[in-house]
Amino acid sequence: MTVKEKAKKMKQVSPLLAASPIRERNYALSLIAESLRNHAGEIFAANKADIRAAQNLGLAEPVIKRMTFNESKLNSALDGIFGLIELPDPVGRQLLHRQLDSDLELYRITCPIGVIGVIFEARPDALVQISSLCIKSGNCALLKSGHETVETNRILFNIINTAVIKSGLPEGCLVHAEERSEISELLECDESVDLIIPRGSNSFVRYIMDNTRIPVMGHSDGVCHIYVSRNANTEKAIKIITDAKTQYVAVCNAVESVLIDESIKDSFMPQLEKAMADAHVELIKEPADPHTEYLDYKLSVYTVKDLDAAIGHINLYGSHHTDCIITEDDEETEKFMQLVDSANVYRNCSTRFADGFRYGFGAEVGISTGKLHARGPVGLEGLVTYKYRLYGNGHIVADYAEGRRMFDFKDM
Amino acid sequence: MTVKEKAKKMKQVSPLLAASPIRERNYALSLIAESLRNHAGEIFAANKADIRAAQNLGLAEPVIKRMTFNESKLNSALDGIFGLIELPDPVGRQLLHRQLDSDLELYRITCPIGVIGVIFEARPDALVQISSLCIKSGNCALLKSGHETVETNRILFNIINTAVIKSGLPEGCLVHAEERSEISELLECDESVDLIIPRGSNSFVRYIMDNTRIPVMGHSDGVCHIYVSRNANTEKAIKIITDAKTQYVAVCNAVESVLIDESIKDSFMPQLEKAMADAHVELIKEPADPHTEYLDYKLSVYTVKDLDAAIGHINLYGSHHTDCIITEDDEETEKFMQLVDSANVYRNCSTRFADGFRYGFGAEVGISTGKLHARGPVGLEGLVTYKYRLYGNGHIVADYAEGRRMFDFKDM
Repeated sequence: MTVKEKAKKMKQVSPLLAASPIRERNYALSLIAESLRNHAGEIFAANKADIRAAQNLGLAEPVIKRMTFNESKLNSALDGIFGLIELPDPVGRQLLHRQLDSDLELYRITCPIGVIGVIFEARPDALVQISSLCIKSGNCALLKSGHETVETNRILFNIINTAVIKSGLPEGCLVHAEERSEISELLECDESVDLIIPRGSNSFVRYIMDNTRIPVMGHSDGVCHIYVSRNANTEKAIKIITDAKTQYVAVCNAVESVLIDESIKDSFMPQLEKAMADAHVELIKEPADPHTEYLDYKLSVYTVKDLDAAIGHINLYGSHHTDCIITEDDEETEKFMQLVDSANVYRNCSTRFADGFRYGFGAEVGISTGKLHARGPVGLEGLVTYKYRLYGNGHIVADYAEGRRMFDFKDM
Repeated sequence: MTVKEKAKKMKQVSPLLAASPIRERNYALSLIAESLRNHAGEIFAANKADIRAAQNLGLAEPVIKRMTFNESKLNSALDGIFGLIELPDPVGRQLLHRQLDSDLELYRITCPIGVIGVIFEARPDALVQISSLCIKSGNCALLKSGHETVETNRILFNIINTAVIKSGLPEGCLVHAEERSEISELLECDESVDLIIPRGSNSFVRYIMDNTRIPVMGHSDGVCHIYVSRNANTEKAIKIITDAKTQYVAVCNAVESVLIDESIKDSFMPQLEKAMADAHVELIKEPADPHTEYLDYKLSVYTVKDLDAAIGHINLYGSHHTDCIITEDDEETEKFMQLVDSANVYRNCSTRFADGFRYGFGAEVGISTGKLHARGPVGLEGLVTYKYRLYGNGHIVADYAEGRRMFDFKDM
């Protein structure tokens, strides 16, 4: 079957998965966890084969580290699944109940999005996490993961898919695409696929966004800022900048630009220079392209006139991901929080907190910088939409249009 | 200034509008209402010029009716504005407040989407409604309305824009594009415009969706279904189908296809034939293209085997807009409501209820059949998104990653 045919079949089963009781979806998750544990040996063996192949190809150490799926990664994955089982059902939540007239009642009820295509890097733990999130939220998922972990992906997917079918959920609600060529096929499935979540490099995400009619949720770049105000506690500032830059440099929520208020430049710059030198971070002062995402031990530094200039700089050159103010002043905090047009706006803490787990969402499929639907870290809640249900008893519009009846709105 | 330049300027003022207090936005609305009332004579004169020109061009009567802006249309528009003023502020609502750890607090707060481009038909009342909705929700709006009402649009926009500036809201938060050629310019403003809402014919909306990288909210077609179950009260069925088809034929929420359960076909079909003949509706039995949207006194009729077949037909051939079951049975109602993958799913009432005013939203910018963000009638709530605010006190991620601190999630 082609990806298109598989996606079409998923579209047909998606209402059945959407209507499945939470008991069944949780049962599927527990079967997945059990089966992953039972097949741990095979999974690790497949992963070792992938790692060997990667080493033979000379792939970089951080890539290989991300590819690794060992006992400790398995344990985290299982913890994640158990955590998901505990979370309340995101489907079927009543968001609105309003009487429009007697015997005419409107409900807004959450429901799954439907069929989601997720394209992600060679990270076996992401495959487990993403498929679990989709099952919990009642979404069919078409998964395409990085080819470097092809052996691990294959066995993980088979274990997960078998468990899902065994649980009684509809067959075909999970599909795994192994070939890179299948991505372009997936992008054409706008009749069947409701949403694409791409993860990966800027250029890859941008390519996806530019080549499909299917809505895309995610972010291409993460140019995060920290503004050090004249009212900053500079000790906190140094500690936070160091963490935001170096705790993990290759990620979207790492800080890339620091804006220093002109009035404290002379005192603060030497402290920053020393701290960054100690952390092996290269400071790049007033670089020509303020939109650079280094993902490396490099940091842009600008001097800005005041809070307004900082906000202007961030809104113009940032990527609307995560931006932070270091200040002890409440009033300027509120101004920053209101005027900075980003998914995550922070005071006195590291930009690295922008993450589904750290927000207590249990897990995330990614981080969205789009403004429609889910924004910021996207967990279960971002994987549902809603529908309106209207229950009447022979009600017709002509009666209202022609004045024989009047609406009688009452929130219930 | 080109549309691109105007949009860029709007992007810069949008955070200021977003941060404006509700008092100011409501004041702007009351100034708009007052000024529209004061300039009623000029508005009506401009509208008469537009109507004369349209009549000279031989435009159809329904089009001219929609173009008309007279005393009664003005009164409805003013009622709409007063209603909007009464509604609570959609901006700044707290959707989540969670402690992540001591002194580290996360909030999810609604905020405006930013800059919205609305392209709509030649309906002066729509111009008033849409700009009012955008002002109330703190969004900048770039408006392009049908050229047939160019004189009316111009004076209405000037009145509204002048009132907005007078109220103290930032200049440039409303822009009016008069030229049709400006639409393609607008579609290229993906750096400045956050959302496009197109209204109009299927082919026009489809064109917009296919020619921009900006997210589009709306619907291209409305192929609405009514399924008459074996458990239907046929008297209700006839009354509802007649209303859904004929109360206003040229709209997206009019019914286009009726599905009759096989088991009641012999008794129900003659009743339907008689009712439709009385209402001058042509019945088209088992047409070859089940996806036809007539927007006319025509109605497709199909026989389906059972409830499952009806659901399958609707999900395959419908447009995910509004679909209804006529039944007295609660169990099959729930099944229909769950499995039909549409923005609005109804029991025993007319599909024509799918409308922001009838849902008690006060007004709508349009109806969305997309699954992301707002779905169904889109009112104020659909014009906001949210951002995460995180307030810390020197918190860094390394402390949690390296086990020195543990998260302590608590919903507040």
